[in-house]
Amino acid sequence: MAENRAVSYAGAGKVEVHDIAYPKLELADGPGVNPANVGRKCEHGVILKVVSTNICGSDQHMVRGRTTAPEGLILGHEITGEIVEVGRDVEFLKVGDLCSVPFNIACGRCRNCKERKTGICLNVNPDRPGSAFGYVDMGGWVGGQAEYVMAPYADFNLLKFPDRDQAMEKILDLTMLSDIFPTGFHGAITAGAKPGSTVYIAGAGPVGLAAAVGAQLLGAAVVIVGDMNEDRLAQARSFGCETVDVSKGSPQDQIEQILGIPEVDAAVDAVGFEAKGHGADSGQEAPATVLNSLMDVTSAGGGIGIPGLYVTGDPGGVDDAAQRGALSLSLGTGWAKSLSFATGQCPVMSYHRELMNAILADRVSIAKAVNATIITLDDAPRGYQEFDSGVARKFVIDPHGMLAA
Amino acid sequence: MAENRAVSYAGAGKVEVHDIAYPKLELADGPGVNPANVGRKCEHGVILKVVSTNICGSDQHMVRGRTTAPEGLILGHEITGEIVEVGRDVEFLKVGDLCSVPFNIACGRCRNCKERKTGICLNVNPDRPGSAFGYVDMGGWVGGQAEYVMAPYADFNLLKFPDRDQAMEKILDLTMLSDIFPTGFHGAITAGAKPGSTVYIAGAGPVGLAAAVGAQLLGAAVVIVGDMNEDRLAQARSFGCETVDVSKGSPQDQIEQILGIPEVDAAVDAVGFEAKGHGADSGQEAPATVLNSLMDVTSAGGGIGIPGLYVTGDPGGVDDAAQRGALSLSLGTGWAKSLSFATGQCPVMSYHRELMNAILADRVSIAKAVNATIITLDDAPRGYQEFDSGVARKFVIDPHGMLAA
Amino acid sequence: MAENRAVSYAGAGKVEVHDIAYPKLELADGPGVNPANVGRKCEHGVILKVVSTNICGSDQHMVRGRTTAPEGLILGHEITGEIVEVGRDVEFLKVGDLCSVPFNIACGRCRNCKERKTGICLNVNPDRPGSAFGYVDMGGWVGGQAEYVMAPYADFNLLKFPDRDQAMEKILDLTMLSDIFPTGFHGAITAGAKPGSTVYIAGAGPVGLAAAVGAQLLGAAVVIVGDMNEDRLAQARSFGCETVDVSKGSPQDQIEQILGIPEVDAAVDAVGFEAKGHGADSGQEAPATVLNSLMDVTSAGGGIGIPGLYVTGDPGGVDDAAQRGALSLSLGTGWAKSLSFATGQCPVMSYHRELMNAILADRVSIAKAVNATIITLDDAPRGYQEFDSGVARKFVIDPHGMLAA
Amino acid sequence: MAENRAVSYAGAGKVEVHDIAYPKLELADGPGVNPANVGRKCEHGVILKVVSTNICGSDQHMVRGRTTAPEGLILGHEITGEIVEVGRDVEFLKVGDLCSVPFNIACGRCRNCKERKTGICLNVNPDRPGSAFGYVDMGGWVGGQAEYVMAPYADFNLLKFPDRDQAMEKILDLTMLSDIFPTGFHGAITAGAKPGSTVYIAGAGPVGLAAAVGAQLLGAAVVIVGDMNEDRLAQARSFGCETVDVSKGSPQDQIEQILGIPEVDAAVDAVGFEAKGHGADSGQEAPATVLNSLMDVTSAGGGIGIPGLYVTGDPGGVDDAAQRGALSLSLGTGWAKSLSFATGQCPVMSYHRELMNAILADRVSIAKAVNATIITLDDAPRGYQEFDSGVARKFVIDPHGMLAA
Repeated sequence: MAENRAVSYAGAGKVEVHDIAYPKLELADGPGVNPANVGRKCEHGVILKVVSTNICGSDQHMVRGRTTAPEGLILGHEITGEIVEVGRDVEFLKVGDLCSVPFNIACGRCRNCKERKTGICLNVNPDRPGSAFGYVDMGGWVGGQAEYVMAPYADFNLLKFPDRDQAMEKILDLTMLSDIFPTGFHGAITAGAKPGSTVYIAGAGPVGLAAAVGAQLLGAAVVIVGDMNEDRLAQARSFGCETVDVSKGSPQDQIEQILGIPEVDAAVDAVGFEAKGHGADSGQEAPATVLNSLMDVTSAGGGIGIPGLYVTGDPGGVDDAAQRGALSLSLGTGWAKSLSFATGQCPVMSYHRELMNAILADRVSIAKAVNATIITLDDAPRGYQEFDSGVARKFVIDPHGMLAA
Repeated sequence: MAENRAVSYAGAGKVEVHDIAYPKLELADGPGVNPANVGRKCEHGVILKVVSTNICGSDQHMVRGRTTAPEGLILGHEITGEIVEVGRDVEFLKVGDLCSVPFNIACGRCRNCKERKTGICLNVNPDRPGSAFGYVDMGGWVGGQAEYVMAPYADFNLLKFPDRDQAMEKILDLTMLSDIFPTGFHGAITAGAKPGSTVYIAGAGPVGLAAAVGAQLLGAAVVIVGDMNEDRLAQARSFGCETVDVSKGSPQDQIEQILGIPEVDAAVDAVGFEAKGHGADSGQEAPATVLNSLMDVTSAGGGIGIPGLYVTGDPGGVDDAAQRGALSLSLGTGWAKSLSFATGQCPVMSYHRELMNAILADRVSIAKAVNATIITLDDAPRGYQEFDSGVARKFVIDPHGMLAA
Repeated sequence: MAENRAVSYAGAGKVEVHDIAYPKLELADGPGVNPANVGRKCEHGVILKVVSTNICGSDQHMVRGRTTAPEGLILGHEITGEIVEVGRDVEFLKVGDLCSVPFNIACGRCRNCKERKTGICLNVNPDRPGSAFGYVDMGGWVGGQAEYVMAPYADFNLLKFPDRDQAMEKILDLTMLSDIFPTGFHGAITAGAKPGSTVYIAGAGPVGLAAAVGAQLLGAAVVIVGDMNEDRLAQARSFGCETVDVSKGSPQDQIEQILGIPEVDAAVDAVGFEAKGHGADSGQEAPATVLNSLMDVTSAGGGIGIPGLYVTGDPGGVDDAAQRGALSLSLGTGWAKSLSFATGQCPVMSYHRELMNAILADRVSIAKAVNATIITLDDAPRGYQEFDSGVARKFVIDPHGMLAA
Repeated sequence: MAENRAVSYAGAGKVEVHDIAYPKLELADGPGVNPANVGRKCEHGVILKVVSTNICGSDQHMVRGRTTAPEGLILGHEITGEIVEVGRDVEFLKVGDLCSVPFNIACGRCRNCKERKTGICLNVNPDRPGSAFGYVDMGGWVGGQAEYVMAPYADFNLLKFPDRDQAMEKILDLTMLSDIFPTGFHGAITAGAKPGSTVYIAGAGPVGLAAAVGAQLLGAAVVIVGDMNEDRLAQARSFGCETVDVSKGSPQDQIEQILGIPEVDAAVDAVGFEAKGHGADSGQEAPATVLNSLMDVTSAGGGIGIPGLYVTGDPGGVDDAAQRGALSLSLGTGWAKSLSFATGQCPVMSYHRELMNAILADRVSIAKAVNATIITLDDAPRGYQEFDSGVARKFVIDPHGMLAA
């Protein structure tokens, strides 16, 4: 009998591992599944034996109770797996293929997908453009922190690794292709990081560190990472970044000590709406802090990439404005400097093949940069807890013991 | 004896015309001149007999007393003129040339100028990147609503019209090249207007109308202009735009009536910080209204161009936040839709030659679109007043009676 | 009993109309079908009742016997149709939808399709990247100059018109979306046509005229079309282009008479390998003439878009070099001017939606520009003959009498 | 009394070092000076004490007698120097500044310079767009393989190093900013090199090696360099490139052995018109060989960057076509693959600041990659000879013994 086990959200601060149904090529009803998606046929999909699936900072928003995620929602949108079944409409993938699954689900047939904007596919989430596995308000696609998962529109979405053995040797790096490596890279590229540039990245969590690796791969001369967690800053220094500790004051002065000038060419917000104040206000939630400080530190004509998540409503926000998702932004500062701003989900497909090639050719060591740490599926609750405590680790769940081997 | 007359700011709500010194190839002291710029030699400059000089919406911010502009500041940054004297270091222009002068003064020698970012030149304003003629906190370069004016770095900045007679025939169109036509076009292009696109433009003042013409020139399928001034909306309709009256409610529903869907591909904010509320709140200042509504009406993946001015401080703001230049923005809405935002002064030089060619080849009728209206220099105070009252006109000052002829 | 009739190539200089099999959702064997494609299942496809299907200049290369096309090959890659049957894996189209079919067949699932490079899809032509309906060496997909045709990967490829009645009113314009309008537009855009630019287009056949319309839509100030056929030049003048008659000499001098300078900003080669000499050599085949003359007339820093077809081998070429597809190009001229060159099939999908919107909003009149002329399916042979004789017409076959109605 | 010594062309195969006049801020008559430039005032210029000046492969074209360069022409366009005198129109540089001088001379005031196309400046070469120091048909600006040289339009052209001591420590790297590092980088960037890409570079001379370093800095996964000189290939391997020996056959098979597929994403022609045949034909001049082979090895949709020089006429060409600068190109191959081609002088200013920052931050070691080798001014003839013999070195002339120190 086919079996499956998965990680689910079990109320604020809690996740659980338990049995769930083995996936079918059809989206069944369940916690968080959009009614309009219930019963949706997925002959274009595949069933994957999950080889690795990572815990993401954006999962934490749900687990902390900062969203309307229902209890029982199966978590996990960072999925790498081996195909064990293909739908009849799948033409270019076959059983046994080892693949990376972009966290954004995309149909490959709508206007936005055709324009490579796979983060805002029009056909997979009945509520709005854009979708993801295992995420609140994203259509209800069952998460992949599980032994098995179904991935729809597989020919379009999945990235097959060219050689299975080679891939298994670098699987801790390749597992980052489903989300954080492309997401960080997207932040760096939309900020304008390029050869010889200076880049400041707010946030030294996994996405921030991935943005730093991305900026380096794009040829940046100096990459500076800011956080208030010394362990995470040490992690950033381990691969050649400069760091600033924002608990000691605003980043501007510290950037000046590093560069000789208080400004960078490009800046990335890898924090998002749960930002905390800098300096004396550190520790206190202050949702606009990061964006306002990035406008200060970015030089005239520069760009700000915003992969960090901002929400339309935050029930746990510090005040009424935050709860409505309204931020008090000093836009005049940005306007006087002719800054530009890029927001939204990373369209993973725009980058994952190239980043895979960079990994396979030993050009980048993303797993080491984010301190990838393998845990079992049963250990997922502990992983969530430790990650939430601020350890400088990226937890990679190994549901079948294939990585530990 | 050389003489000169000019328009100056004379305190909130007032402008005056009076005698001023004839310009030299040196920046003398005077109201609003940055001390570090006093005495600056300008052998790279030319002296122009002003053929036409327009009143701009951004002049109104000063004249309404919404800035720290000092009394006596000579106004005017939209200048077209005939060269009457050239500095010894000017090599490619000569006496008699008829030229358009970009409102942003740029040295042509700094990093930003070399990167075509002439709106944020590093060498002309001691306070910050970016400068302009006749504007508060922009370095103190004497304004051009005058009979004569000095323009520095002339070889770099000025656009010479290829044929004088041809130019004088189209001078009412060409006079728009110094600011509003490029500025509106920049809004359209940074928003992503392109062939077949739908574009919404907030604000039917001259910049908004210029953005509409710009979007049309870029091939937009449908251009929709929003305002609460029926005369200005009628002006927009006169050259093929659709319109929405934001005093009757938010633009979304009206856009849906026009397009069948409530969203456009690209949006332009041609209003800026003195925005007023929509619908029931119309008339009341609400500085974030325009930007928040543009995030609502722009479709996922779209862009928002922001040529409308946002300031770092607004002494006349409706509340404490507005006075600090802080806007309450629903960034989560923009983030969920992966929108991008472009701000800042238009780098006029990036567009003026191409737009001149479009005018000279009869591809666009910008003067008609903005209802260019000639007035004498002595009539400037009346022009300011009428413009402030919301008439659907763009006032073009004719200091020497050359246009009227 | 299901029936079908189609136009086929019947040897050099000849086409025939005869009965063929009604299409299935599977590619059957037949003249020109790549063996590796025989029997290919197409449940992702649809069967279309052909509403209109145009004769293309690139069909002429085959019909003139300048290719290795086998007799019996069903012609036609410019297809607009109504869906009469959908494969089981088609999800977003339904029977009754009226659609434009891009001439390039693309899977929507390979690396190139994901990068919007649908002209070089890796999965539809076993011989090389890139495919098309009804064309030699393009995989063997049955042509659409027929009553019915099968279009694979329909969800990805087809562009559904939003409203059937509105579409039928403009069907003569919309029929140009399957190839020549995007192809001409691609030529203009890759050449760098933009607002205020001057553009020279070599060739006043339908693609050249479409490039001219495209350049106008992109905002070009002056569009100049060159040909040696006075009727076609008159057609170009009918919608505002300037023209040069290359039978009277090289285009440079004539361009100077129009613009005052002998150069343009951007140039388009809408002729291809069957180019003929200019001036005294006119009439004689001279395959490199067009490209060499475009290097002469394009100003330094400009671009040359090359939608005109160049082949790897031309059995009918004037000499040995031409037969091997080798051109004697004065690349040094291009290099000294820092020119760039863009070649290849137009990726129709990159442009057809936007151009459809421009048509539906009455921004362009492509049918009138190319002098669209309706003929019956039985009249196709006459259409081919007249088109080959150089008439200034674009023939639109109306297999079911739906346009004539 | 002010003195000066310089390297001049002394007839085919010969260069000499001899006394010349100390430079003035005016272009005097002399060998190769365009009559229209004689007596040109350069108050916008500076006089530089040459700190380092490199021998370039394009100098070799002249020295080999493959151009119309007149005897006595002072050579040298790769100049780094210390300012010893400034013209009166120079505003932002001062005596003592250490600067890199782009090889292309540009006015900073024409349309092309304003568009960053400094390789085709309209105002410095009376014959055509584009100029350079010490080069035939480039206006006659006196070369910099000398003790002192005048550089015009200094505020615009020169790149000042931020710190003199730091600069002198890295001077062997920084000396490559005047030409080959930007030129190689331009080849890589116009070819489309980017993170994760595979890049093939034809030619392992200094520009080819610089292109390889550039491709690495742009994030390329694998960089492959081809040549028939084993020493130069060994140099390429020394910094992580793969290599192919084109004397052993066409590059395609060897690329397949490296990558598993016979194609790359992007290709650079760092050879130019003096190309030699591959495989059995190696050693024999065959000017189209490199470009034709690049069309073979570049995958569909890819780009070819062509920094290698192609000329409009080559008196020493192998046949009549070569002497007219006509190349027999298989453009059909490129067309079938939708390739794009970028030609021309590198606009150094577009890249030198960023590459300087990459050097100063220890991101690249260009001097080591090209095996920079210091020689005295008197040893220049030997340097030319050895370079021509194919040694894997880049010769850096040290006129004042400042590097040796």
